[in-house]
Amino acid sequence: MTLSDGRKRVVIECVRPEVDSGQYPIKRVVGEQVVVEADIFVDGHDVLTSMLCYRRIQDSHWTETAMKPLVNDRWQASFTVDQPGTYLYGVSAWTNRFATWHRDFRKRVNANQFAKIDMLTGAELIEATAAKLSGTEREWLDAWLVKMRSPEALSYAGQLLDDQQLESVMLQHCDRELETRFPRELSVEVDQVRSRFSAWYELFPRSCSSNPGEHGTLSDVIDRLPYVAEMGFDILYLPPVHPIGDKFRKGKNNTTEAMPGDVGSPWAIGSKDGGHKSIHPDLGTLEDFDRLVAASRDRGLELAMDIAFQCAPDHPYVTEHPQWFCHRPDGSIQYAENPPKKYQDIYPFDFESKDWRALWDELKSIFEFWIDRGVSVFRVDNPHTKPFPFWEWCIGEIKKKHPDTIFLAEAFTRPKIMHRLAKLGFTQSYTYFAWRNTKHELTSYVTDLTQTEVREFFRPNFWPNTPDILPEYLQVGGIAAFKARLVLAATLSSNYGIYGPTFEHCWSEPVKDGSEEYNHSEKYQVHQHDLGRSDSLKNYIARVNFARRDLSVLQTTWGVQFHDVDNDQLICYSKKSPDRSEIVLAVVNLDPHHTQSGWIDLPLDDFGLDASQSYQMYDLLSDARYLWNGPRNYVELKPYDSPAHLFLLRRRETNERNF
Amino acid sequence: MTLSDGRKRVVIECVRPEVDSGQYPIKRVVGEQVVVEADIFVDGHDVLTSMLCYRRIQDSHWTETAMKPLVNDRWQASFTVDQPGTYLYGVSAWTNRFATWHRDFRKRVNANQFAKIDMLTGAELIEATAAKLSGTEREWLDAWLVKMRSPEALSYAGQLLDDQQLESVMLQHCDRELETRFPRELSVEVDQVRSRFSAWYELFPRSCSSNPGEHGTLSDVIDRLPYVAEMGFDILYLPPVHPIGDKFRKGKNNTTEAMPGDVGSPWAIGSKDGGHKSIHPDLGTLEDFDRLVAASRDRGLELAMDIAFQCAPDHPYVTEHPQWFCHRPDGSIQYAENPPKKYQDIYPFDFESKDWRALWDELKSIFEFWIDRGVSVFRVDNPHTKPFPFWEWCIGEIKKKHPDTIFLAEAFTRPKIMHRLAKLGFTQSYTYFAWRNTKHELTSYVTDLTQTEVREFFRPNFWPNTPDILPEYLQVGGIAAFKARLVLAATLSSNYGIYGPTFEHCWSEPVKDGSEEYNHSEKYQVHQHDLGRSDSLKNYIARVNFARRDLSVLQTTWGVQFHDVDNDQLICYSKKSPDRSEIVLAVVNLDPHHTQSGWIDLPLDDFGLDASQSYQMYDLLSDARYLWNGPRNYVELKPYDSPAHLFLLRRRETNERNF
Repeated sequence: MTLSDGRKRVVIECVRPEVDSGQYPIKRVVGEQVVVEADIFVDGHDVLTSMLCYRRIQDSHWTETAMKPLVNDRWQASFTVDQPGTYLYGVSAWTNRFATWHRDFRKRVNANQFAKIDMLTGAELIEATAAKLSGTEREWLDAWLVKMRSPEALSYAGQLLDDQQLESVMLQHCDRELETRFPRELSVEVDQVRSRFSAWYELFPRSCSSNPGEHGTLSDVIDRLPYVAEMGFDILYLPPVHPIGDKFRKGKNNTTEAMPGDVGSPWAIGSKDGGHKSIHPDLGTLEDFDRLVAASRDRGLELAMDIAFQCAPDHPYVTEHPQWFCHRPDGSIQYAENPPKKYQDIYPFDFESKDWRALWDELKSIFEFWIDRGVSVFRVDNPHTKPFPFWEWCIGEIKKKHPDTIFLAEAFTRPKIMHRLAKLGFTQSYTYFAWRNTKHELTSYVTDLTQTEVREFFRPNFWPNTPDILPEYLQVGGIAAFKARLVLAATLSSNYGIYGPTFEHCWSEPVKDGSEEYNHSEKYQVHQHDLGRSDSLKNYIARVNFARRDLSVLQTTWGVQFHDVDNDQLICYSKKSPDRSEIVLAVVNLDPHHTQSGWIDLPLDDFGLDASQSYQMYDLLSDARYLWNGPRNYVELKPYDSPAHLFLLRRRETNERNF
Repeated sequence: MTLSDGRKRVVIECVRPEVDSGQYPIKRVVGEQVVVEADIFVDGHDVLTSMLCYRRIQDSHWTETAMKPLVNDRWQASFTVDQPGTYLYGVSAWTNRFATWHRDFRKRVNANQFAKIDMLTGAELIEATAAKLSGTEREWLDAWLVKMRSPEALSYAGQLLDDQQLESVMLQHCDRELETRFPRELSVEVDQVRSRFSAWYELFPRSCSSNPGEHGTLSDVIDRLPYVAEMGFDILYLPPVHPIGDKFRKGKNNTTEAMPGDVGSPWAIGSKDGGHKSIHPDLGTLEDFDRLVAASRDRGLELAMDIAFQCAPDHPYVTEHPQWFCHRPDGSIQYAENPPKKYQDIYPFDFESKDWRALWDELKSIFEFWIDRGVSVFRVDNPHTKPFPFWEWCIGEIKKKHPDTIFLAEAFTRPKIMHRLAKLGFTQSYTYFAWRNTKHELTSYVTDLTQTEVREFFRPNFWPNTPDILPEYLQVGGIAAFKARLVLAATLSSNYGIYGPTFEHCWSEPVKDGSEEYNHSEKYQVHQHDLGRSDSLKNYIARVNFARRDLSVLQTTWGVQFHDVDNDQLICYSKKSPDRSEIVLAVVNLDPHHTQSGWIDLPLDDFGLDASQSYQMYDLLSDARYLWNGPRNYVELKPYDSPAHLFLLRRRETNERNF
């Protein structure tokens, strides 16, 4: 501390939210509130005034809002973020001499122990303020001074204490010379609403042709848009659409030797036809891509691209920028490996290259290339195998110009690494949801995500399946498992996605026992999907997605509350609006094999329900209605019919109460 | 972030302990360990090396010790602080290329998939290191290079993997160009051992005369030293010994008008006879004080002075430095008040004075004056009514020169204020112990103090009574209440104190119903105490204090563990040494009126006890012995006889097992 601050007596500490001592921003979307709290106190008994200040980073002027004391020296205020981009916020506080005098004067008056000198003490403070003013405020304070120094000053005591304008003027022109400011300015990254609420649908473009054996194209994807939109999705995510390497190309089912005609993995990016800024010739052209972006948007769908920063051996970078790769003593380039496993079809970049700066610039330009073609959503492949400082810089630079960009981190790795990626800028993150199956697992995982500081920076995105993950639960549970996992993903998390049409067609065959890889995976071969299958879950999915669109409580992840059920195979949770006008209750049978039933305990007080009043539970998935009463009600779920209820609580009007 | 750091890929976060983002030091005493943990990770799969570094603030050289990975990317290392003063510590980490190669090479060898090129890759790393060295290390590495590049290189694989010296040399000369350093240097304030382990005894010097009606002197206090020392105390704390103001002097029982002969409150400091650097003439002289300091130390007692930064109206400061006080519109000086209550015998300092710098210097000089006379322990009166920046500066400056100084904060106020005073430098703190009586209150309060981050900076000092606090429990509970509160204070907290002889004589009369003030309080009048009273608790107190001296587990507050008892009036807790060779178990009957009994549940595993083996519980307070067996044992405590057991667990030797 410097001695010049010696008279700044107020302490401000423990400002929340704050991520890593202010190193990283919290996240919000447009229209949300930022509620800020701080411990603020001073020696002795002086009255404090405290301000929360905030501004957009590009503005120079701070807006201030007065903080209010809660209990235990905790103060609170909030502000709304109404533009995408970065906001800053800070806290300041000072001892308010006039307010202190005012409080004490009121105590003296109430105890009938006030004297003229007390009035004169207040007058001194008003006089000092008046001296700084002019015009009507000055005249008005001067008039008070005359009264307070008049022989009959004490007769004005009551009037003075009641004069809220006096308090307000004195607060507005308060002497803040000795104000304390919390030393760190904190920041909020404000994203578009879709960052918080999105339903993703992933498909392989090359599997979109309706002609058997034919390689699908981007035009075929355009034809597929109505199907996706009608299910209620709003982000269409495509695996990489770039040329695929020929050297060491993988065959069907990830065999190391490709047969003639094998199409290879879209993640083995780059060939003589181009790299990360090119379209695979079999999919179409950049113009086709532009048409797809526009057609998607017409259907209410944003196109999400897959960005995988790695190269096939025949990627143009390899010859143009050999310094971006690791070289072995024999001069060859080091392929990816996890000894003793080798991935010879992939060359990773060497981020410790002396030419790292040019590498960073080039990689950033890939995002910019596609942003310029209208893409605003990116699913980033394995970001945890590239340096954190790169992502922090790259995402930061892009969001400065394009604050609406969404980056989904595909990092299925250790928790602290996933959290760091979220802190440094990723908008959404894949999660462990695919492997959280039991009631205990789901409850504790969702609680960790929503009830800890993690919620300030980590936005989960729940996927029941991906091209890399066919969980054992889906392998063995049949259609009931798919339905249950869909409802869980879509109602626990406001961001979720599925990989289709394998999902709606309940693909469940692994490449071998114990594997989570699909047999005949689309990663390595082309498929055709019969979208008209009678057993498709597409209508069920649409039900779920349209419930999410209709009900605002399903558009946020944070408000979930779990409820007791006396059966471990049944999980029950609710989300409610702040005014409790909208309450959704989900009950899911986690056992895909057997009918399960149980008694649910609901917190009627939290729901604003009267114990004597019945209420209707309307199932958004089946249109069934149940009349419930009191806190304890019975549910029974037959997995094949319907492994889940998604209830909207309907209150009964008062005048119906006695019917 | 700056782009020059772009290749520094390692992340270090969540370093603990860290107080307020490194703003304040943690506290330790000489000889203790500082265990440091951090989350450390990197993108990808490279092997990390991480170092904890530390140094005394006055040294320029950092000592490093390698951190070890725990689980979940958490790393740990520790160091010992062996000198009083300030230590700094930090964390650094980097990707270790040789260790990464070494790990992968081992995997290749184990999978029998290694080739000459793998050996050559390692050789490149060794060569780069060798180039930086000379002498035997260079020669030794060069010899390895010859082998690794020879035609029969692969035959050396096993030898290479087993060569720990190679690993060690390569680690020692590791390339740390891309090392990441945690951005904050953190600090430890290291105090003398007495800061952690102390037994305080407070007495009024003027009540130390053995002649009825006579004002005691510092010489009488010297005569009282054997009495205090024999009870086992090690800090003798005196209320202020300065001249007492005449103007507005308080009478007996805090009446506003003093009668002739009334001695006034020692906290109304200053008169024509001097101020904070003077001795009250009735107590003696500065020379008497010096004799007392020396005589105390001869008895193993440190003298603690009371520092109360406030003035009686006739304190010399008031005329010499009127600018240090608030002035009212009529020119008079503002006395202390909490409207409508007035404390006209006290003038507070105005820390917002324009002359604050001189005020700070003068106040600091008061500490220095007494430090120069041999005092190293200060009990600071109401620090929470003086500015936090003042204390931070004042204590910081003093401890730079006198790191052994102890400051006890007498701040009975809101928790965050108490914590802030501890963070900014106070060595020990009074607590809410006096008002924590039930099992639930005691358990949760002690858990908050010992199991949260608070333990890093807040050292509690438990007082069952003070001259200001005669708790209701002591008013109504008789001798059993005094004994119980003594045992709780002295065994829950390693720092504790009592105000005597009122404590050992069980003074329990309040000035009026509902008050915590003593009747005929020594704060306003002189008493004589009959030290030979047969009902004195002095021997009981000595038992407790000597148990504390004998048993190291009672010399720290942090290790307490509570155990279940099936009776809410019985509280049970233990403290054990790390090797479990010393285990103390306290059981206290919180009901001073009735005999209480119950069954205690002990964690035999934690104690290293075999369920089939009996063990002896030796009561350090009564010398009674009990043979216990298994986890569940019966206790019964008759409050008047003995409201507490303080058991030392004695294991039975194996060869006695069958006797």
